Amino acid sequence: MRLGLRIKEILVDKQTQYQHILVVKTAEYGRLLALDGAIQLTEKDEFTYHEMITHVAMCAHPAPKRVLVVGGGDGGVVREVIKHDSVERVTLVDIDEAVIETSRAYFPSVSCALDHPKVEIATMDALVYVKEHVDEFNVIVVDSTDPVDFAAGLYERSFFVTAASALKGDGMIVAQTESPFAEPEIVSSTFSALSEAFPISFLYWGVVPTYPTGLWTYAIGSKLYDPRETRSPAPLDVRYYTKELHRSAFILPKFLKDLIGGDAQVQTKQKACRAT
Amino acid sequence: MRLGLRIKEILVDKQTQYQHILVVKTAEYGRLLALDGAIQLTEKDEFTYHEMITHVAMCAHPAPKRVLVVGGGDGGVVREVIKHDSVERVTLVDIDEAVIETSRAYFPSVSCALDHPKVEIATMDALVYVKEHVDEFNVIVVDSTDPVDFAAGLYERSFFVTAASALKGDGMIVAQTESPFAEPEIVSSTFSALSEAFPISFLYWGVVPTYPTGLWTYAIGSKLYDPRETRSPAPLDVRYYTKELHRSAFILPKFLKDLIGGDAQVQTKQKACRAT
Repeated sequence: MRLGLRIKEILVDKQTQYQHILVVKTAEYGRLLALDGAIQLTEKDEFTYHEMITHVAMCAHPAPKRVLVVGGGDGGVVREVIKHDSVERVTLVDIDEAVIETSRAYFPSVSCALDHPKVEIATMDALVYVKEHVDEFNVIVVDSTDPVDFAAGLYERSFFVTAASALKGDGMIVAQTESPFAEPEIVSSTFSALSEAFPISFLYWGVVPTYPTGLWTYAIGSKLYDPRETRSPAPLDVRYYTKELHRSAFILPKFLKDLIGGDAQVQTKQKACRAT
Repeated sequence: MRLGLRIKEILVDKQTQYQHILVVKTAEYGRLLALDGAIQLTEKDEFTYHEMITHVAMCAHPAPKRVLVVGGGDGGVVREVIKHDSVERVTLVDIDEAVIETSRAYFPSVSCALDHPKVEIATMDALVYVKEHVDEFNVIVVDSTDPVDFAAGLYERSFFVTAASALKGDGMIVAQTESPFAEPEIVSSTFSALSEAFPISFLYWGVVPTYPTGLWTYAIGSKLYDPRETRSPAPLDVRYYTKELHRSAFILPKFLKDLIGGDAQVQTKQKACRAT
């Protein structure tokens, strides 16, 4: 399955130490960023992904102060995190500085918050960074590329266990988990890996028109709070997320619920039963 | 924006009196039906569309007995309607008999209910058929092609007014209203046209991977019942629809709510105010 967008101009076409970066101007979706051939964002629809991967955990937490963004060098998640007044510091850890610089140069509407005084940037392997920080974050957002090469480790149980240690006792982690139509095994295996590392875990979904099949999933793990409920104010300048949508995003189409083995809530209960 | 699917074999490629019919075997989505170049269904994901266009109205009605399907010659909507035990007769009105015959020949899993004893088929212009039937149906499902040529009339206010007359006092109509990313004007103008013909109207949404942008909308008009609530049993053999999803499908992403001028419920109230 391929998505075709009319290209008017190629702006960046280069290989970095880690991946291939392509920036093109499309006819109908504005500028587009692709890494190793996979569309990361277009100017027209990036809000659907960045709002849904960010605001669910941020609004489920009563007052997120310290936030870690893993990957997400384009700055879209950071832009959304900064919209929450409770935030004191957000750290972006991306392995590839070239992605950050490309976004600064070609996607000002996405990278606009990267120079905000509350933002710090570390260009290094997130697996190493997370191991070195314990009991520090309220929210971790894993905005990674597909699970190949250097990003593969971000989809494994061991990473989620380490991430749980990096979170405070009230912490939550959210990770993008691909499309159940295009990559059903990744959805179920990543959700399963995350579920084993957190006492509370759910899958939720949204639409991203320029991602494969349009239907996208996100896994959320929580140490204390039920992530389906909202506890802090929703940002005003949003185009997709609302508090009503927050709750309904956890209502899965039946085939998706079946794919992860039924309601996550039921899974949690069963796990609790096994533990006793 | 184009969707590309790897084609393994072309099975049908012909022009009828009304439109061009293409049936191909794809590598990953099974067989695919396209009319005038627009994908109507693939075997892999047709359930997402057919379940969501059918079961919302059927489950919101307490006991739908007489159902009219406008368009939908492939038989997918009829297959879903027949799953409701309350149904006594479902009438399929499609202008192009060739679509029905093509589906019978190449899509047995979609057309399988067309020979059911409760089903009658009329190959004629639905605009004429609807005018000739008054106070007869509990539910009308408008499963039309895009609003061009002979299908254009199915998106106009005059059609919805006629359809309201064809419905009983407890009746509901649902129509597919395209993608808000690809065709925002069609979404808003069709919803507006339908809203003017019914005292209660809402837009709801779902995902269809092989339709443009993946995000699809449906407009529902009702004479009596709030279509967001369920009143009759959900079919057991479904893969997308659940009663929980029924309710949440009415919770719109913010940009889509804005596109139709806010919450439909609010629109209804305002209309009631204007009428007094």
